[in-house]
Order: sequence, then C-alpha cells, then structure tokens
Amino acid sequence: MMRPIHRVNSVRWDGGLGQEGQDLLAVEEPLEIRLDGESVAVTMRTPGEDFALAAGFLFTEGILKESRQVGSIVRCPSSEQGSADNVVNVLTAPEAPRPEAGWQRRFYLSSSCGICGRTSIDAVRQATPPMTDAARFDPEILYTLPELLRSAQRVFSETGALHAAALFDREGKLQGVMEDVGRHNAVDKIIGSRLLEDEIPLRGHVLLVSGRLSFEITQKALIAGIPALVGISGASSLAVALAREAGMLLVGFLRGRSMQVYAGSERLCGA
Amino acid sequence: MMRPIHRVNSVRWDGGLGQEGQDLLAVEEPLEIRLDGESVAVTMRTPGEDFALAAGFLFTEGILKESRQVGSIVRCPSSEQGSADNVVNVLTAPEAPRPEAGWQRRFYLSSSCGICGRTSIDAVRQATPPMTDAARFDPEILYTLPELLRSAQRVFSETGALHAAALFDREGKLQGVMEDVGRHNAVDKIIGSRLLEDEIPLRGHVLLVSGRLSFEITQKALIAGIPALVGISGASSLAVALAREAGMLLVGFLRGRSMQVYAGSERLCGA
Repeated sequence: MMRPIHRVNSVRWDGGLGQEGQDLLAVEEPLEIRLDGESVAVTMRTPGEDFALAAGFLFTEGILKESRQVGSIVRCPSSEQGSADNVVNVLTAPEAPRPEAGWQRRFYLSSSCGICGRTSIDAVRQATPPMTDAARFDPEILYTLPELLRSAQRVFSETGALHAAALFDREGKLQGVMEDVGRHNAVDKIIGSRLLEDEIPLRGHVLLVSGRLSFEITQKALIAGIPALVGISGASSLAVALAREAGMLLVGFLRGRSMQVYAGSERLCGA
Repeated sequence: MMRPIHRVNSVRWDGGLGQEGQDLLAVEEPLEIRLDGESVAVTMRTPGEDFALAAGFLFTEGILKESRQVGSIVRCPSSEQGSADNVVNVLTAPEAPRPEAGWQRRFYLSSSCGICGRTSIDAVRQATPPMTDAARFDPEILYTLPELLRSAQRVFSETGALHAAALFDREGKLQGVMEDVGRHNAVDKIIGSRLLEDEIPLRGHVLLVSGRLSFEITQKALIAGIPALVGISGASSLAVALAREAGMLLVGFLRGRSMQVYAGSERLCGA
C-alpha cells in the first residue's frame, strides 16, 4: 500500500536566496474503479481508504443503491509492477438486487453527454431520496467543527494539498475524517466508509468540507441522506438551488463564530 | 448569456443571532462540449468564455492538436428554454488536419478505464510536446504575481467560490485571467483563449493558479508549452514527477517574498 504523503527534495526561496531542503507532498495516483470486473471510472486520488472510495463513488453516482449490494472488494492482480495498488474491483453480492441494467450507459450519460433539450439542473441530477430527516442543529455546535477538523487532520495538512471531509453527529462529535487531493474523493471516502458499515442514510449528521460547496458535493451529501452540509469556503448557485429544493441546511464561510446560511435556515435552533 | 455571479437571499449568523441579507454566489451550470456535433463531455462550469473553455478542453485533452483545426464555434439551438446557453459545438475546419480517428475511444480511455497492466503515470498521461523553451525567470517578478492576480479578480473573488488562472509574460505583465468554479476549467479557459489567438505554444510564460497544483493542471500547462507553473497552495507528488520529467518550473506556496520550488529550479535567475 502506498503512503498518502511523500517526502521530496525541494528548494525553499526566501527573497533572493534559495536553500535546498525537503518537503512533504500529498501523493496523487490514479485509481481505476471496477464493478464486477467492468471498468467504471479512473479518478486521481490520494492512496488510502480505496475500498471506501470505490464503494462511495459507486453509491453517490447512483450505480449502487444500498450497502447489501456490495459483496466484497478486492484489488486487481496486475501484470506489471506498480499498478496493482491502483485498480479496485467491487463485486456485487449474488443475493442482493442487481445494479439497474444500463448503468454503463447512465454513467456515461451523466459524465459525458445528453443535456441538450433538458433543463440544466435535471441533466446532471441523480435521483436523490426524499429528505425525511427533521434534525435541527445548534449554531454554537457548528462553530466548533472547523477546529475539530483541524485537530484531526494535523498530520496530512502539512502538505497543503489535501482536501478534507469530516462527518459529525448533531452533538458535534467527530465520526470520521478523510483526506484526498480531490475534494469529491474525500466526500466519497467518508460516505463509502459509512456505506460499508451499513449506516446510510446518515440521519442527523453534519458533513464539513474544506473546499468549495459545489453542486456535486451537495448531491453526494443528499444521496447519503445527510441533512446538513457546511463549509469554510463559499457555495455555488447550483449547490444552493439543490439544497433549497431538498430542505437541506447549507452553510458557507463557517469561520470563528459566524457563518453564511444559504439554505435550510429553519434547521437552526434559535432561528 | 448568463452572468457569472448571482445574488441570493441568505442569512448571516454572528454568534447566536441570524440576520437576513443578500449574498453573491458564483454561478455553476453544466456545459456540454461537442466536436462536430458529437458529444465529448459535460463539465460543471461558471458561464462566460465558453468558447475558450470548449477549445481549451479539446486541446488540453489532446483531441485537437493545433488552432487551425478550429473552424468555428457555435451554441446549439435548443428544443427547450434554458439549455441553449449550455451546449457549445466546436466545428473543425475542413482544410485542416482531421482529429485523429478514434478520439472518442481515446477520450473514453483516458477518463474511464484502461490503466490495469500499465504503470500509473502512463495511464493518465497525454502526449505532451517536448519542452524546448529555455526561458529563465526572476524570483522577484514571481513574488509580485499573486497580488497582480488579486487586483485583477477583485470583482469575482467576492463570491469566495471561484478558482482563478492567470497568464503572465516573463516580465510579470498580466496577459489574461479567467475564473471558474472548477480549477481545470479556469486553466482550460486561459489556454483556450490563447489557442483561439493562435498563440500556442506559450513560450516564456508563467501560469499562476489559485488552487492546488495537481497532475492534471500540470499536464494542461505542459501541453500548452508553458515553461513555468506557480501556485499559492501545495503540489501533489504526481505533479512534481511530471514537471521534473518535462523540465518545467513548478512552484508552490508563493506567498509574500517566499516560495517552494519543486521542479526546474535551474530556470530561476540567481539559482
């Protein structure tokens, strides 16, 4: 298994002077995700938690619908040195419902074509389960989350090139944190890890992400049944539209004891 | 044409008090890119500079090899309200070389399968032209670039959800800046805009990006013949490996009068 960080020689420049030294880098390698031996996608990811990433990706892309569809997950044997760590095969359980016929075509559609003649939000939209979770959240607890994330990720954050996604319960207790060079991957890893524990939907949970709040991140959280998505940076227009439609709490610029609430403010205690 | 920023109602919380107000968001919408009518990809992007984005994407993905292959770029007529702005068709020039046969398959391969049994870096690697550009760069000029970018992007940066890519000449003169919710898109927009002006390869230029220095960003810069890629954040292991192999200057953590040089330090004056 490759390590998620890697030490390299580099030159530190201060003003007009350069000095050789060493630096920690986030490792980035391609991972090919297969379903029953069939290639689904290659993602550039930080090695580690690859099984969670593969399961989470297949789930948030709508190809797998429930945890019992995952029978086992294995690494592919490789014919050449160096690639075995970079191919993961998810094998469906024979007794569980089959993935819907045509997922190859559907996946291809969602990533590569088919939006002409449809309204834009529908085109990229996966089917998300209705949000029946009525959980409310205390702003004072939300304010504590970024510092909890920073404490938890202190080792990896040295590289300055990793995104993080952290899952908390409603009381602000950290349930898990995942890091990756790709922010979608960090979210897929955290959701996949709970899927493999059969803990989806993640009722009453908060997902905190280090990166921007995009449509795809919001959609992934919704598919996992997470009622609150919060971030340290800003949100996009389509993320806000999707969160409002779904009744999800969407918070950006969570810094110190302030935050910007874009959707679902009725979920805040005291609102 | 949609505007790149959008005003929405939101609730600002400070401590225990929420107050309704308005906020600026970066617009995010899907763009379908077609080549001679055939769908190539859908990317989530910020509207604006869509023709540059489409041309840049096709070029940095290796589907188009030179600017004269671009005959014209048009928006698709739509059958339903709201989608016409989100489909762009690049028409190749009849007199120019055809895109290599099999690009559909090659594109599919590069994004979705085929790495088993190959070493990882080869699997995702496009053919990049050899870097014959011997340009050297002055650290004192590099130190000025982040502030030049900040001045240039002051309007959009209000949203806090946009990535920026800026192109400078060797004297530190800003040649262009593009912003997008996706950092790959910001880079494709800037490269595409120069492709449409027939200015590729971008000899002696510096590309500054606001986001992390990933493999794919590094590869896009290399394909455009840019000898120096600098960023405010960190680099990934594969970005460093690729830049070293190509002889490109790769700089991270460019802040104030200091920077971390990961590759190509021989390109720095005074080194």
